[in-house]
Amino acid sequence: MTIINENFTIHTEGHTDIIDITKNVQNAVYRHSLKDALVTVHIAGSTAAITTIEYEDGLVKDLYEVLEKIAPAGETYHHDDLWHDGNGYAHIRAALIGNSVFVPLINGALNLGTWQQIVLIDFDNKPRLRNICLQIVY
Amino acid sequence: MTIINENFTIHTEGHTDIIDITKNVQNAVYRHSLKDALVTVHIAGSTAAITTIEYEDGLVKDLYEVLEKIAPAGETYHHDDLWHDGNGYAHIRAALIGNSVFVPLINGALNLGTWQQIVLIDFDNKPRLRNICLQIVY
Amino acid sequence: MTIINENFTIHTEGHTDIIDITKNVQNAVYRHSLKDALVTVHIAGSTAAITTIEYEDGLVKDLYEVLEKIAPAGETYHHDDLWHDGNGYAHIRAALIGNSVFVPLINGALNLGTWQQIVLIDFDNKPRLRNICLQIVY
Repeated sequence: MTIINENFTIHTEGHTDIIDITKNVQNAVYRHSLKDALVTVHIAGSTAAITTIEYEDGLVKDLYEVLEKIAPAGETYHHDDLWHDGNGYAHIRAALIGNSVFVPLINGALNLGTWQQIVLIDFDNKPRLRNICLQIVY
Repeated sequence: MTIINENFTIHTEGHTDIIDITKNVQNAVYRHSLKDALVTVHIAGSTAAITTIEYEDGLVKDLYEVLEKIAPAGETYHHDDLWHDGNGYAHIRAALIGNSVFVPLINGALNLGTWQQIVLIDFDNKPRLRNICLQIVY
Repeated sequence: MTIINENFTIHTEGHTDIIDITKNVQNAVYRHSLKDALVTVHIAGSTAAITTIEYEDGLVKDLYEVLEKIAPAGETYHHDDLWHDGNGYAHIRAALIGNSVFVPLINGALNLGTWQQIVLIDFDNKPRLRNICLQIVY
């Protein structure tokens, strides 16, 4: 068995910046010309998340609005009593969505739908440089 | 190390159809008579999700109602400006819940609670034929 | 390839008890002195979840309050028609957050943010003894 570690960095604008990282993931995976593997995509940090979505402007806006409804950025959070950095909402959203996805590599192709992209969401309230880690188990 | 790929198909009614796939997963796993393995259950597509729940009528209705509250099917979504297929809500729900679960196989048994089932949820607004992929790493 | 199974037990108070299990996970992983591995943390059961959060009092309270908004403990759920144990809300919250996380072990360190902890959330409405299972694939 082998585990391959790959990683890449992404500059974000924060404020629930939803970024398509599918190409980055594909590049990191396909260069190894593997047939079958378990591919995991993970981001460290408590104000960012990874999920999948059909990446098009309308849906990106829809996801933003639903998250605003679940944990509004403008509300007061107890967390702000500690750091006063106003990103309580960001932590909550990240805890709900989660830090990672895994995608099976089957017969050399990542098992994604035709209209499905892997996205990084940066909920923090400032620009960040994010490091995405992949583990490819085969 | 070995990765076994397994898959099975499920006809769904869509419209947040919540379907117990535990038996399908157990069949695909237990036929290999393995002792310890990492079992991943994954569905490609941006309008379906996989999670676990105690599969009984009341709870299935409860989950349906909470998801209706989070992203109501009857509301207007920006996504509909693109495709006009009225399933914006479906994409949002799938992005929140996620495409996969993993379950450890320990001593030949999947590590599920006594009252816990693995479910496929098809959020799309029409019947679909869904392909569920398993990767068994051991 | 090897899969190491580890586990530990945690007493909880239930009622959305959010418990930092990072040290338990680190102990179970670091004793093996591995360099690179895929670490999965999983709990069986349909009323508990695992996620990550910055573990500090304010944020723990924030997460509790947002979950109360999404699936209020005081509301009536159809699930209670079956068992009358009043924990319908607990099942829903667990289904939304999920039973597991995975964290890459890279160069001997778990890939967590500086302010990020792994937490067990017990949503059930009574104290429970919970068994957390790790699978370390390397």
